[in-house]
Amino acid sequence: MKKRLTTLTEWMKSYSIDAAFITSTENVFYLSGFYSDPHERLLGLAVFQESEPFLICPAMEKHDAKNAGWDDEIIGYSDIDQPWELVHKAVTKRIKNVRKIAIEKEHMNVERFEQMTNRFERATFLSVEEKMRKLRLIKDDQELQKITEACELADFAIETGVNEIKEGKTELDVLAAVEFALKQKGVSEMSFSTMVLTGANAASPHGAPGLTKIQKGDFVLFDLGVIVDGYCSDMTRTVAYYDINEKQQEIYETVLTAQKAALNRCKPGITCAEVDLTARRIIAEAGYARFFPHRLGHGLGISVHEYPSLNETNPLPLEEGMVFTIEPGIYVPTVAGVRIEDDVVVTKDSFKVLTKYPKELQIIK
Amino acid sequence: MKKRLTTLTEWMKSYSIDAAFITSTENVFYLSGFYSDPHERLLGLAVFQESEPFLICPAMEKHDAKNAGWDDEIIGYSDIDQPWELVHKAVTKRIKNVRKIAIEKEHMNVERFEQMTNRFERATFLSVEEKMRKLRLIKDDQELQKITEACELADFAIETGVNEIKEGKTELDVLAAVEFALKQKGVSEMSFSTMVLTGANAASPHGAPGLTKIQKGDFVLFDLGVIVDGYCSDMTRTVAYYDINEKQQEIYETVLTAQKAALNRCKPGITCAEVDLTARRIIAEAGYARFFPHRLGHGLGISVHEYPSLNETNPLPLEEGMVFTIEPGIYVPTVAGVRIEDDVVVTKDSFKVLTKYPKELQIIK
Repeated sequence: MKKRLTTLTEWMKSYSIDAAFITSTENVFYLSGFYSDPHERLLGLAVFQESEPFLICPAMEKHDAKNAGWDDEIIGYSDIDQPWELVHKAVTKRIKNVRKIAIEKEHMNVERFEQMTNRFERATFLSVEEKMRKLRLIKDDQELQKITEACELADFAIETGVNEIKEGKTELDVLAAVEFALKQKGVSEMSFSTMVLTGANAASPHGAPGLTKIQKGDFVLFDLGVIVDGYCSDMTRTVAYYDINEKQQEIYETVLTAQKAALNRCKPGITCAEVDLTARRIIAEAGYARFFPHRLGHGLGISVHEYPSLNETNPLPLEEGMVFTIEPGIYVPTVAGVRIEDDVVVTKDSFKVLTKYPKELQIIK
Repeated sequence: MKKRLTTLTEWMKSYSIDAAFITSTENVFYLSGFYSDPHERLLGLAVFQESEPFLICPAMEKHDAKNAGWDDEIIGYSDIDQPWELVHKAVTKRIKNVRKIAIEKEHMNVERFEQMTNRFERATFLSVEEKMRKLRLIKDDQELQKITEACELADFAIETGVNEIKEGKTELDVLAAVEFALKQKGVSEMSFSTMVLTGANAASPHGAPGLTKIQKGDFVLFDLGVIVDGYCSDMTRTVAYYDINEKQQEIYETVLTAQKAALNRCKPGITCAEVDLTARRIIAEAGYARFFPHRLGHGLGISVHEYPSLNETNPLPLEEGMVFTIEPGIYVPTVAGVRIEDDVVVTKDSFKVLTKYPKELQIIK
């Protein structure tokens, strides 16, 4: 945690940034260990080149912030305090002339921005977000352990879902059974709304689960993730219910071949674009280019979508400790929708797959 | 829908506002009928005093916006378009000199604000949020119908949960059974994370459901809500598992008496503060003032928390068509946590309770 703050202050020094004021739940958690979402109330972490950082949060959360391991100053405010006054006081106590402040421009709203610009009239504001994304790009051992646990629970969830498949059950029936089993294991939060899609619904990359019933000859697609101690997994499997036709089989095998080929390209030094294109070329050669309308994958960690982006043009080379999804898909309206998604960590000279549920074509009867 | 836009343009005229640019999912839905959350992508509804309004959304959602009943212009943008350029063009096509623009300052982020200020250099920006909150304060028949349905499903959910109570079951067991039953009815979204709390957990107004087991002599508290066609319900019931002691009974009866008294005060002309104080006084007289640390209730509709706020100081008089919760609670650490919450609509000269599950003390055996 201290190391993360040090990397941030080094960046601040190189750009002569006097203060960084971090306000998103995710980035405050990453830098302080304190996970909190006080909704419309202010949560903030102020970091300086030399002076002691401080956290500001609702008074009733002060205790939780301490428990989360934050040793430096914590300013708790009550409902009758003006939190921005407290921020201004705490900042100017540390620095007389604040000239440059880094903030999360994609997170901070205009109302809060005006609170800041009114109080720090001479300051210019720049964005800290790109730096934070880069900081979070390489996962340390503690982070990897949490993501690994989240992936194990995703495996369990998929297994549960596959065992629930039966003719006449709806997507929501199966989905409910999956989340029921997870809750019994103590999981209280999913990375995103769980997807169980079948038939025509699975053939749309943006389908939503509903009352569509599972029928013989259809695919059933599961896309889900679990949060463990603030870290996400994200996993997709597609299985067949009773025999499927040749076209469906061809689509499945194409996605699987593309997915494995992309995985096997992963090692330090290979660019994100190369990994994406490895899968994309295989899908194109099979004649399905226009039915694979999304990027190959995305980083994951505290957010379910973060850096790196695995798309056709990203020149970023892979590095040890990067964690991301590999999830090619082919969606042919009225024929089939298939996606296979694993979570992967780049190792010293190769890669390790964290999601382990089998992905060879499974025919449920 | 047209009436809502007319009310907004009348407000704009009275403040000489040239354009309103609405960007939150909830307010775009309220004014256009189109419900969409394109996450980091731009969604916007531009409204003018005289000219035709327009919607801007990702190209692939254009069709959905039309289907939702939006008859005026829809600008769809692809991933290679610069959506703010399209907004600028569409606005200046309608108005040459844009001087005053109303935006959602609590919703729009700084990055987007800079996109606007760079393009509308001479404009001043003011907040449209307070006006939107007031617009949404009075529900029309169509809205009431959706909220009523959401309340019926909340009744069903509580009934399901109460039937699941058994010694040794955990909070998450019961919660999973409730959501399972709702999903089978086709409910895909809850208003907020469902709460099932028991024992010491229920004695905290901010407890989170976990692996605590239900034990004889404990209360079990359910706080949940369902979303139907974009509209929320929000409901709490507390039941006893086997016989409870006198102190627990006294707490329950005090909350119930306060809740009913507050309900019975509701009619047009009575202020929000009077309703809150009706319950608060009864709880204070019973000696529990400091164990009721929150406001009596809040409005609900598209958002689960909206206007009006039922607190000790709000001078706003009730009006026909307002919908809100009445939810007094007493939380005595290590003794008991009890909250009873109904959703209520103010009628022409009285009120109507929309959540109907019984609230007399129920002892489950």
